[in-house]
Order: sequence, then structure tokens, then C-alpha cells
Amino acid sequence: MEALVLEKKDILNLRDIDLAEELGPQDVRIAIHTVGICGSDVHYYTHGAIGQFVVKEPMVLGHEAAGTVTEVGAEVTTLKAGDRVCMEPGIPDPNSRASRLGMYNLDPAVRFWATPPIHGVLRPSVVHPAAFTFKLPDNVSFAEGAMVEPLAVGMHAATKARITPGDLAVVSGAGPIGMVTAMSALAGGCSRVIMTDVAQPKLDLAATLGPITPVNVAQQNLVEVVNEMTDGWGVDIVFECSGNEKAAADVFEPLRPGGTVVYVGMPLEPIAYDVVAAQVKEARIEHVFRYAHVYPRALALMGSGKIDVKPLITDKFDFSQSVEAFDFAVHMPPTSVKAQITVAG
Amino acid sequence: MEALVLEKKDILNLRDIDLAEELGPQDVRIAIHTVGICGSDVHYYTHGAIGQFVVKEPMVLGHEAAGTVTEVGAEVTTLKAGDRVCMEPGIPDPNSRASRLGMYNLDPAVRFWATPPIHGVLRPSVVHPAAFTFKLPDNVSFAEGAMVEPLAVGMHAATKARITPGDLAVVSGAGPIGMVTAMSALAGGCSRVIMTDVAQPKLDLAATLGPITPVNVAQQNLVEVVNEMTDGWGVDIVFECSGNEKAAADVFEPLRPGGTVVYVGMPLEPIAYDVVAAQVKEARIEHVFRYAHVYPRALALMGSGKIDVKPLITDKFDFSQSVEAFDFAVHMPPTSVKAQITVAG
Amino acid sequence: MEALVLEKKDILNLRDIDLAEELGPQDVRIAIHTVGICGSDVHYYTHGAIGQFVVKEPMVLGHEAAGTVTEVGAEVTTLKAGDRVCMEPGIPDPNSRASRLGMYNLDPAVRFWATPPIHGVLRPSVVHPAAFTFKLPDNVSFAEGAMVEPLAVGMHAATKARITPGDLAVVSGAGPIGMVTAMSALAGGCSRVIMTDVAQPKLDLAATLGPITPVNVAQQNLVEVVNEMTDGWGVDIVFECSGNEKAAADVFEPLRPGGTVVYVGMPLEPIAYDVVAAQVKEARIEHVFRYAHVYPRALALMGSGKIDVKPLITDKFDFSQSVEAFDFAVHMPPTSVKAQITVAG
Amino acid sequence: MEALVLEKKDILNLRDIDLAEELGPQDVRIAIHTVGICGSDVHYYTHGAIGQFVVKEPMVLGHEAAGTVTEVGAEVTTLKAGDRVCMEPGIPDPNSRASRLGMYNLDPAVRFWATPPIHGVLRPSVVHPAAFTFKLPDNVSFAEGAMVEPLAVGMHAATKARITPGDLAVVSGAGPIGMVTAMSALAGGCSRVIMTDVAQPKLDLAATLGPITPVNVAQQNLVEVVNEMTDGWGVDIVFECSGNEKAAADVFEPLRPGGTVVYVGMPLEPIAYDVVAAQVKEARIEHVFRYAHVYPRALALMGSGKIDVKPLITDKFDFSQSVEAFDFAVHMPPTSVKAQITVAG
Repeated sequence: MEALVLEKKDILNLRDIDLAEELGPQDVRIAIHTVGICGSDVHYYTHGAIGQFVVKEPMVLGHEAAGTVTEVGAEVTTLKAGDRVCMEPGIPDPNSRASRLGMYNLDPAVRFWATPPIHGVLRPSVVHPAAFTFKLPDNVSFAEGAMVEPLAVGMHAATKARITPGDLAVVSGAGPIGMVTAMSALAGGCSRVIMTDVAQPKLDLAATLGPITPVNVAQQNLVEVVNEMTDGWGVDIVFECSGNEKAAADVFEPLRPGGTVVYVGMPLEPIAYDVVAAQVKEARIEHVFRYAHVYPRALALMGSGKIDVKPLITDKFDFSQSVEAFDFAVHMPPTSVKAQITVAG
Repeated sequence: MEALVLEKKDILNLRDIDLAEELGPQDVRIAIHTVGICGSDVHYYTHGAIGQFVVKEPMVLGHEAAGTVTEVGAEVTTLKAGDRVCMEPGIPDPNSRASRLGMYNLDPAVRFWATPPIHGVLRPSVVHPAAFTFKLPDNVSFAEGAMVEPLAVGMHAATKARITPGDLAVVSGAGPIGMVTAMSALAGGCSRVIMTDVAQPKLDLAATLGPITPVNVAQQNLVEVVNEMTDGWGVDIVFECSGNEKAAADVFEPLRPGGTVVYVGMPLEPIAYDVVAAQVKEARIEHVFRYAHVYPRALALMGSGKIDVKPLITDKFDFSQSVEAFDFAVHMPPTSVKAQITVAG
Repeated sequence: MEALVLEKKDILNLRDIDLAEELGPQDVRIAIHTVGICGSDVHYYTHGAIGQFVVKEPMVLGHEAAGTVTEVGAEVTTLKAGDRVCMEPGIPDPNSRASRLGMYNLDPAVRFWATPPIHGVLRPSVVHPAAFTFKLPDNVSFAEGAMVEPLAVGMHAATKARITPGDLAVVSGAGPIGMVTAMSALAGGCSRVIMTDVAQPKLDLAATLGPITPVNVAQQNLVEVVNEMTDGWGVDIVFECSGNEKAAADVFEPLRPGGTVVYVGMPLEPIAYDVVAAQVKEARIEHVFRYAHVYPRALALMGSGKIDVKPLITDKFDFSQSVEAFDFAVHMPPTSVKAQITVAG
Repeated sequence: MEALVLEKKDILNLRDIDLAEELGPQDVRIAIHTVGICGSDVHYYTHGAIGQFVVKEPMVLGHEAAGTVTEVGAEVTTLKAGDRVCMEPGIPDPNSRASRLGMYNLDPAVRFWATPPIHGVLRPSVVHPAAFTFKLPDNVSFAEGAMVEPLAVGMHAATKARITPGDLAVVSGAGPIGMVTAMSALAGGCSRVIMTDVAQPKLDLAATLGPITPVNVAQQNLVEVVNEMTDGWGVDIVFECSGNEKAAADVFEPLRPGGTVVYVGMPLEPIAYDVVAAQVKEARIEHVFRYAHVYPRALALMGSGKIDVKPLITDKFDFSQSVEAFDFAVHMPPTSVKAQITVAG
């Protein structure tokens, strides 16, 4: 079938590749409709690797996908041909120790789309376990369905935070993950999010998404803003989504006593972590790695109207323009959040 | 000063009464603006008692109040004259064992407005501890501020439920407490609420308040609706707000494995509780008694627009019509939710 | 092979039966050494059914077992022939929704030994998934290994209770499950357990097992004892292990504000549950159904010496005496706790 | 009265000082019996300051104390003259926001014994709030009572860890705080503790205190030991008690997926914290600052025999030898853990 193949670093082709897959009894076959481009896809394109994961053989890109079920395995009862769906890109071993404990995202045996050597889904169809394939509500489009994957990261962060209704949160970093984390935090119980970045266009967009107070930290001091808004008490939660080492180290100053920090962004280097600053506030720190159990929850919130990801889908490309789409994504303007490729109309 | 005095069962007078109060160093004096009428106020009027609390001396009614600070004690730093505020009606002993643990609502020494022998606040002014007096956001009116007290019950229930973002909840009973619990559950992270009652007008109102699915249990079977909506899995949370013994006993059937029940309503008699039905689902049960620590959170959610209580304020009376207002409240039509008395313009 | 077969209600035979089992790639074959007799085994013997589970075909009894691995499947890496092990008797579907969430004990598809129509393990050998087979520490005997199954119920209850170190608990009911729950509560952080029963010999045994205060409720008032021990504050946790309807209803009076109740015993009838009594203390209620994830934890506590189940193993029988052992168990004297059958020396 | 006065850095005198204190209605007066010497006392002696807390005026040292009530305030009902007690050295403002939430240890207004400018208790008597004075069980000596203060740090760490019964923990650092943390972790539900240090005498003592596996990290590799003991899975909890920057940074490698780190020790400098290493395991991090609500729990565990601090009390001095005791503590041999001063026989 035709697929978007990363031959090696810097070389992308839309070309035929043999991806024949057998349909197991608990699997479904899905015709792919829409695939979003993620920063990790772009990074494989421009660098050929992410950490220990190195592209050694040609690999199909894409893991943020929605489509339509075309065939179901013999034991599948929850889905049928014609169902509109989105899919979790990671398939764990259900018998691993981590999976048995309910933490399937931490199973080291997870096979994840477009993470070498596993092919991604910028192609017409894929076979996937029914257990990790989720029906879209009628009022959720394929484009929105393909947004569930990045949204799931924010949802997982909001879940780990154990928000108390009415909490005030800081989300540092107004990139795509910061955006979906802010949305998830608000849908998950926060009364308001203070969002920080140095790119004003991103903050301007963020400010339209709900009760979000943008703070351009190139011009304003976050701690002063927080103290002003909270009479010096501090915020309940800091979601660190920038991956910036300094931002990641500075989480404790705006935090209230007994507050929570969630590290979502992934700094390249170890950060200068002030244990004593965390101790005098008895901060709780949570770390997230991908997500688990949140797809149905994200879809429920989208279906009921509490989360609307449409403003984040800023750029659309046809399948035939896939290489062009990636070149656009490499140099994404600050007014763009998410580019998607429509594989099939 | 003039106040609405319950002389004894069935006898209410708007009359002068001596309520001189000294302003302590950590107190504020508040000019009362709006007071809501609660079912407990009405019950003291019609029955002269609630359980062990018996009206033995004339008592001023009213505990859902908002107003304006007119004077602050010597040590008060968080409030100043002119601040628009609402107040927690219960004042605990800060040195009690329960208070020290953070559960001040469970302190048996709590002094609670309009609970014998403590006077309520249907009167021009009151002295109150600054620690239990909360500033209204600029966009929250006095009428909405007086709704924080009933809303706090729903907020406390939503907090105790420990909602996971995207949860689906049942709220049984569409009275005022059911309404504020549904609002709090949605603001606190639920994707949708299924609301049950037998009074269709209440359900019709509920359905306008957000992603709320009304189920008239006189005509529909709740368990069938839930199974249909969840592929037989069940809901994550049941908030029992009806106080009806049968509804309170039937909470386990619509519940998912590992789900949560919150008992908010207070059944008059012990219920027939099926331990084994709860065990096969390993249900967790939480019980709420009034509230603690939720006023600032409720106000934050109202200030940011995530909770809008205005549709629940269905009937307004002047202070001079206070007795009339109570007689209205005794026979509240099903289209009414909350009646309020404006003490001062 | 020869096995203890319940032909039908009241009829037990030690006889040959065809139980040929294939060894799957993730399975192990175990030579059974010791099997404990559980109340449920006895109940199938004397009643032919437990609730909806009815013995329609001859069924081998026994599910509390330890033995030695004799053969391992092709993909098994965690065990080898010669390993001394005990086994979880319930095998869930790893792909069920409950299992994926980590609650495999709530999977309705669980296949549980000696629960119709699944055969138990009073027989020379069995094939079992390696994932539910656990190595015994060197200092844990087969007899102790066969106690892990009932102990696991207590461990699961102690886990669900979320004990705060130093908690004071009541365990109501000094039967085998009460005993292992008290041991688990103490090993899990409680400072002391108050144990209730009406059978003095059971309480006398309990009092030798650790810091356990026996209360014979035929002679003493539990609430008075608790108030005396806690200056009227109450206990942190009540583990209801008697299954007695009255005991299960009376859990709130000895409880402290903010305390926890765990329902372990299974009352035959719904109980008279006083919602308001639970509300004024904001009690949290947990329910347990079998157990999940606790076998390795129970073995770790036995291996380190923090739990010693040997005093609970009061009666031993040879495999040839199996029918006699069951007849003994039907009329167990109050000085006995657990009878075991040694299948192989 | 005569007291041990730190005149300024390096200068200690046992001399008369005016410490007249009035007995408030909720206070008790206590005749001091035993006072332990803490590292912080020693640090004020040798450095004249800890961080921002600088000794500017002569200050009485000592905050680990037990004694006998000699007089009670008018409103005190929980204690009477003659009661043997120990005391929390920090007195919070009960009306602060942190206190109201139950986190009184995080109240910035806390007044803490022997933290400038508050005098400590190496003196014959002190006045203290009854709410922070706790009765010793009959079988707990004054010397053990004076150990409750350091033990409380370990208890608080064990509480924050939210131990699941049977957890395996690492405690890094075998100083006094490491020792009490290990004891608290075991009493609080851990099956075993792996204790690390480079001082073999400390490890040898630790190994006698319960199921504690000593690891001398000058000779052994902790991660190898953990992998060997856990089949490569990792430990459930790491309690970092060394305050060493490298040890504090290396907590993630021995940790299991989904494990917990508790930072108890206070590194002087920010540590090199590897966010990504924490993310791939979704570690939860807790920080402790002193303690709250644990004195009664520590006493309950000592009273029931689950915690025995006597082996940690290695050196005793008379009040007249107080200066000598401090000089000993400055150069504590590795075989010593805690030195105490007996103020009154």
C-alpha cells in the first residue's frame, strides 16, 4: 500500500510499501481517515532518532489517527464495520507485570506506532487490537478524533494531578501539549489556568480557549502575578509543559503549601531541583509518561462539549501533500498548533 | 435590630430583637444583603425542630447569606470595609481535634447559624470571623453569593467523590441539592450527569444546565439507561441526593466495578444496604456532612464562569415580605428551586 | 488422577477422575503439596451451591494450595522446575476492561478453582498460568504457602483500608478471615487491633497473635471499650469480618470522625444501614471481593517475619483422610482455625 | 531558672536565665525530665545559624523533650498534674490558612523550640499548649518519650509515602533520621527495608533493628542488590535520608515503575534531577517538612511494642554535664545514634 515512509534522516517518500497484516481474533482493521503530525514524527524526520530509538530501516510515520472500522476479528464484540474510531498508538503486553497493575503505559514491551522499529499509520489502513480502538461520539469528527492522542497526554496529566474542584493551575509552555493540558485541567476541575510562554501569538490563542490568563514571561514575572491573584498563597498545581530546564526548576516558587507539580515536558538535561524549596511546601510531584485509560474519558468530554479541540487544528493537508506537510511542520509558525493530513475523504 | 424571628413552631415574625454583637480582633461586621431560604429553615418553621435540634427560644432564621463588610477587627488583614462577601454559617473551635486534622465540619462544637440555639442572619447585620468570610469576585452578585452555601454542599460532594476527569455520574434527586451537586460534578471533571427524579419540571430545568441527561424514573428504568449509555459497564459515580430510602439502597446496580457512591441526601430511616452487591463491585462509599474548605473553590468556579447558579434563583422577595416568602417556600412549586430574600438594596 | 471429588451435595469421594491439562507457553505444571480447607469448600459440600454457583457436575474441591513446579511452558522466564510456589486460584481474562484497569478480581470472566464449573486442586497436580504462580521464600513452608490464599483476603482488606501508620482498628469476628485480617492490619501499619467475637476460645487465640485486645461482645460493650481506649474519639478503622447483619450495621458508633469501614464478611441479607450516622462522621466505606496484587506482598511479609500464620494451622490431615478432613471441618471446634490436607509429602 | 544557653556560636553555658512563663487557659506546665540532642542543636552550637535562622540573642537549646505535667490551665480537660508526657516543639497559629487545612507544620508562623528567637527546653520546666502535649503510655519511659520528636520525622515520611502493605523500601543514610525512618517504614507496612550508608558500624546497628538489609554503598552497588532482590522490578519506595546530593539524584534507578520517592534529608545544594528518568517510571515524589498529626500515632506504636527506640539511645548525660554532652555530640562516634540529657531524676 502507499504510505509516508521515512527512508532515513531527512528523506521522506510517499511510496508503496508492503505492510500486509493479519487480522487476529481480537483485532479490527481500520481505514485511516486523518492523521495528525506530532513533534516526535518531525524529530525522527529531522534527526533520525529520539534518544535510544534510532531509525535503522525505512519506517512509516504517524501515530495520531482516526478512521473507520472495515473488518472485525472473530472474538470482537465491542466494534463493528462502519464504526468511526480513534486508536491508542501503543500496544502493551497484557500479561506484563506493569499491565497487570493497570499501568500498561509503563510496560517496557509496549509497541508504539512510528517508534522504531514499529511502523506508523500514514497509510490507508491498519490492523489494531479492539481493546485499544475507541468509538467516536457522533458529534466528534475524524479530525477531532485524531486529536485524541495529543489530548490524551494532557488528560493523563490532569488525572495524575488529582485536581480538587476549583483548583488554580499554572501551565508553563503554550505549545500543543501545554494547550491540551490547559484544556484538560479546566475540564477536569480547575477554575482557571495561568498559562506562560514567551511567544505572544500562542498566548493570544490560549486566551480564547477558556478561563485562561496568559502570562508572557518575557515581560511579566509569574510569581508576582500568582501572588497578586492568590493573596500570596500560591497556585494549587503547576503543570510543567515547556520542557525548559529553567522553567522546570522554578516550579516551587509560585506553588502553594501542599501543592502539586506535574512534569509533562521532557527536559533534555537534568534540572537543578531545590529539594528544600519543595520540602518547606511539602510539594507532591507527579510525572507522566504517555497515558493510560484516558481515551474513553477524553472522548466523553469531547462528546459532551466540555473539551473542544477544533481551535487547535490550524493546518490541513491532503495525503498527496504529506511531504509538504512535514516540511511545513518543521518550521511551524507560532500561530499554528496542529497540522493534520487527511488520508482518505 | 429588625429580624425574622421564629418564635416557635408555625409562628414567624419580622420584629425587633436584641442581637448586639461585639467585634473581636479577628472578626468582621457585615451588612447583610441577600439571604436564601433553605429547606432546613422551612423545616424549623413547620416542625420546630430537626432531630435533636429543638427551637426552645425565639430564633432568627437564615444561613445562606451575602453582604458587605462594614467594619473589621484589629488583626484582620484579608478583608476591608466595602468588600462584598459571603459567609460560612458554621464556626468551629479551631483547637478541636477534628479542626486540627482539617475536618472542621465534623467538630461537634460547631456553632451554626439558625441551628438552635444560634441565631441566623435574616437581619441587617452580623459579626463573623474573617477566616470564614470570603470575598466575592467582581462578576458574582450578592444573589449568587448567597447561593454559595447550598452550592458548597454539592462542591463538597464532588470533592469527596475524587472525580477522575471524564467520569460519568448519576445524580439521584433533582431538588436544590441535586442541582448544585450536578453543577459541581460537571465543573469538577465529570463529562456528563444522568439526573433522576419523578418531577418532570425539575428534570426539564436540570436539562438546561449543562450536559445533563434527565431520567424520569416514574417512566424510565435507570439501570437500562445506564447500560445503554455505557455498554453495560455502569457509571463511575452515584451521588445520592434524594434522601429517599429506596433510591439510597439502589445505588449499586447502575455502578461500574470499582465505582464510587456519595451519600448526600439524608434518609429518615436506615436503608436496606446490600453489602454483597457492593462487594462484587468493590464500591467505595463516601458520606458528606455540610462542607469544609470549599467556599473559595466555589467562588473561583463562579468567578471564572464554570458554574452559573443564576438559573437556580427562581423567586425573590423583599425583607418586608419575609413571612410571605417562607409561606411560599413551604409549598414550593416544582418549577421553583431557590427563593431568596433581599435584606438591603 | 486421584482427586477429592464432590459428586453432589453431601457426597465426597477420593477417586480417579480425568483432569488431563495441556501446558500452554505461559503456564507451569505444579505438583500439589498442601491444600487448606476453606469455608466455601465446606459450604459446597453441605449445600451443593453458593448463591448462583451450583454444583451440577462432579467437581474437585480445594483452592488454597502450595506445591512444587515440575514443568514450565516455553515462554516462562520467572519460574523453573523445582521452585516451591503457591498459586492464586482465580484466573482472569487479561484483556477484560476490569483487568486492564488493574482490578482483575472484578472481572466477571474470572475462572476460580472449586467454583462450579471449575475444578479445584485437591489432586496431585495442576497446570496454572505462571503470572498467578508465586515463589515461596525459603523460610516459608508449604503449609504456610497454602495459607496465603485466605491471608490474601485480609491483606486486600488492609490494603483497601489505606491504613495510616499507628491506626487503631476494630476487627469484628474472630474466625479465620478475622484472624488474617487482624494480622494484615497489624503488619500493614495498625498499632493495635481490638478483636470482637462471642466465642472466648477464638478470642484467647487471637490475643496471642500480636497487640490484639480481645472483646467478648457477649459480655462487654464494644463502644464503651473503644471510648475508654480513645478518650471518646473512636477507632480509625472497622474491619467487619463477621458477616453478621447486626455487627455490620453497628460499625459507625465506635468509629472516629473521618474513619473508615471495610466490609469483608458477606451478610446473607441486606443490613439496616444508618446513612445519617455515617454522614455525621463522614465515614468512608470500602468493600473487598477476593483480592488482587497481594500474593507477592503477603509472601514478602511472611518471608521477613512480620506475618506468622503458623498458629492458625491447627489441624492436619493426609490426602487419604480427605473426606474425614471435610467432615471435621463441617463441625470445626472453636479452638480450631484452619485444617489442611497434605497431598504429597 | 537554670538552662543550657547558647550565648553565641561556640559558646554554651549552663546558667540562670529569666524564662518566666504565664499559664494560659489551654496550656499546661511541664517539669522537663529528658531532652535529646538533635543535629540542629549541634549545628546552632557550631555555626550559630541554620540558613535564615540566626542566633542573635542568647537562646536555650533543646527541643526533643519529655516530662511530667505539674499544672494545667483552666480549660484543659485532656491532661492533669502527674501525667507523663512528651511535647511537639512547634506551635502553629490555629487560625492560619495552612493550619485550617490540617497542614499546621507548613504554617510560616510556627514557633519552634530552639529555633531563633524561640527558647528551647534544656531547663527545668516549660509552659506548652495542651493540644501539643501527649500522654506517654505506661510502658514508655521518659527517655523513649524524648525520642518521639526525631521518630516523628520518620513517621511523617512513612505516612506521606502511603505504604501499601508488603512494600519493599530503600532508606538511604543510616543516621538517626534514617534509623527512625526505617523503623517507621517497617511499622507502617513495609515488609523489609534496604538501608544504605558508607559507615559500617551504623549499618551493623541498623541490621539489628528488624528486617533490614544493610548495603554498604562504598563496597556494593545498590541497584544490583535491588535488581537481585526484585528480579529487576525495583523497590516500591525510596526514602532519601542522607541529604547527600548524589544520593538524592540517584533515587530513580532502583525504583520500580509507579514507585514513590520521599525526600527527608535536606541537601545543601540543588540536585541534578533527571525528569525523564522519573517520567518513564511515573515516579511520585513526596517531600516532608517536620511532621503533623503523628505524635499520637508514634506513641501508639511504641506502646504496642511495634516500635522500640531504646537501641537508638546510645549515650546519656546528666543535666550538669550538658556542655560536655554537646561537645560529645559534635564529634559523635559512628557507633552512637542519640545522646540524651536527663534534666531531672
